[in-house]
Amino acid sequence: MTEFVLHPRLTADTTPVADWALSRVLLMNDARYPWLVLVPRRHDAVELFDLSGPDRRVLIEEVARAGRLLKGISGATKINVGALGNLVAQLHVHVVARHSGDPAWPGPVWGHGAAVPYAASARDALIAKIVAAG
Amino acid sequence: MTEFVLHPRLTADTTPVADWALSRVLLMNDARYPWLVLVPRRHDAVELFDLSGPDRRVLIEEVARAGRLLKGISGATKINVGALGNLVAQLHVHVVARHSGDPAWPGPVWGHGAAVPYAASARDALIAKIVAAG
Repeated sequence: MTEFVLHPRLTADTTPVADWALSRVLLMNDARYPWLVLVPRRHDAVELFDLSGPDRRVLIEEVARAGRLLKGISGATKINVGALGNLVAQLHVHVVARHSGDPAWPGPVWGHGAAVPYAASARDALIAKIVAAG
Repeated sequence: MTEFVLHPRLTADTTPVADWALSRVLLMNDARYPWLVLVPRRHDAVELFDLSGPDRRVLIEEVARAGRLLKGISGATKINVGALGNLVAQLHVHVVARHSGDPAWPGPVWGHGAAVPYAASARDALIAKIVAAG
């Protein structure tokens, strides 16, 4: 069993929030949308069907938990969930709080314009809220 | 318990393939990408966290099954999975076979250009393959 190592692109684009039972939980450094990325700590998973059934059951619960939590914190209009991986193969699931009228609304956030980095204080405050609600 | 009724937009954009244990399986009428849409037959679900835990466990298995099946049929580079619902609130999960160099690659398919409808014969042949592989 090879050790789990986060893909360098995910490391560069996010700040770690927590390790849940299966997933490393990351905050995307984009102040336009409250946006978590869940990365199952399985070094070789690319597709959902690469995970074991038990891992998938944990993952879907963690995705639901992340969505419920972001909805509660942000009052989102809709939670968007996506596992694309066209650029970064390592299996990761985006959970994004969308608001009617946000910069990409009603389209998807992926590939829409450039990220707007958080001020460190705003980022840390949001992470604290997520951890408290988590 | 209110009866499940498919959203008219989903009805208009797709062709029914099968009813699995939880989800109605639909083929998106867009010949650019082999693209299934899974709609849990629960009339009031909008977010993943609206489903019961047992329903979520079935759904993630059906999403994995759809992805494995599309990968096998199409030789996709990557399976993309998304639950957005910004336009159609009824909970539905897209499972899309992506190929390096397809019209939206490496971006998301949602909101990218106009659908290219199948010829009826090509659509029916693909549905037959999906049902056989399913």
